[in-house]
Amino acid sequence: MARWEGGAQDRLERAALALFLEQGFAETTVPQIAAQAGLTTRTFFRHFADKREVLFAGDDAVPALVQRFMAQVPPDVRPVPLILSQLAPFAETVFGHRRDVLMLRHRIISLDQGLEERKLQKMATLRAAIVNGFMHRHTDELTAGLAADLAMMVLGTALTRWLTLDESTPLSAVVAQVLAAFRQLASELEIKSVP
Amino acid sequence: MARWEGGAQDRLERAALALFLEQGFAETTVPQIAAQAGLTTRTFFRHFADKREVLFAGDDAVPALVQRFMAQVPPDVRPVPLILSQLAPFAETVFGHRRDVLMLRHRIISLDQGLEERKLQKMATLRAAIVNGFMHRHTDELTAGLAADLAMMVLGTALTRWLTLDESTPLSAVVAQVLAAFRQLASELEIKSVP
Repeated sequence: MARWEGGAQDRLERAALALFLEQGFAETTVPQIAAQAGLTTRTFFRHFADKREVLFAGDDAVPALVQRFMAQVPPDVRPVPLILSQLAPFAETVFGHRRDVLMLRHRIISLDQGLEERKLQKMATLRAAIVNGFMHRHTDELTAGLAADLAMMVLGTALTRWLTLDESTPLSAVVAQVLAAFRQLASELEIKSVP
Repeated sequence: MARWEGGAQDRLERAALALFLEQGFAETTVPQIAAQAGLTTRTFFRHFADKREVLFAGDDAVPALVQRFMAQVPPDVRPVPLILSQLAPFAETVFGHRRDVLMLRHRIISLDQGLEERKLQKMATLRAAIVNGFMHRHTDELTAGLAADLAMMVLGTALTRWLTLDESTPLSAVVAQVLAAFRQLASELEIKSVP
């Protein structure tokens, strides 16, 4: 997904983020965004349904990408090994190349409750795509849900850390760190005697 | 927490839930709720700040309850064994005695986006209380966050299942089932060679 179509979409996105931060999301209009990007309103609407969608650019392609990553793994591979092998490259593909944009986006979304909701909806869509992918691999429903929660938890934690760490750490390395921390935690599940 | 104060709060809650389902949340007024419960509006406001709070009755006491459950466990017990021993009795205390009310509440909340948001806020508050509890036990921040996510994931999955299963299964048994499924899943974290 999400190679930027020529430069227009990218320019519109950057112009919109700059204006949202400068003036506020509610106060910014589509004609302002187009003007700032040196493009027409009509071009804007060829790329985005409305100004809110600028903040979620590329997200619609994510469910198909989830499917593609899951399809690369032989059908007999269990959910967790699948997550261990695919989550880091998936995260890198979707998010890795645009840390600066994601940092701005994160700030803008956190200032607006409507946008926060929209983000939660998008996350629910991603989770549903993962559950769906596991169920297509004949994982039972309970396990598919828990595996999707696990993937979302590691991805969410890694993204938050990556956006607050210094620039030089690749996202895939942060995903690996978080997976290692979770593996450590989960190893305690084997301890049977509890006070 | 959440032993019902005499019968008034309980009666108001049941009256409110019945009216919300019958007429819709937006269409129901506090005087209608009070009248349906055979009580005065003044009594209503001694128990709830507004009609929305009826749906989240008792939730304010949950963070203190989290603290109490965590304090029962010796300080050297690690996060996952703590979750294994405390999550089921915690869930039973908070939710176990009012499945019927929770089922109604779940239906009402799912019909109203504002209420869904409020629910997400309440869940974020619960998660924060758990993170906080682990950090007080000197768990590092990353592990505390992952452990809280794990607890929330098991609790959320168990509640959803419990509310859709037949009446006779106790919530604590469903929590144990979900924990067992997760333990099974997590055991795959040890598999090192991945295609």
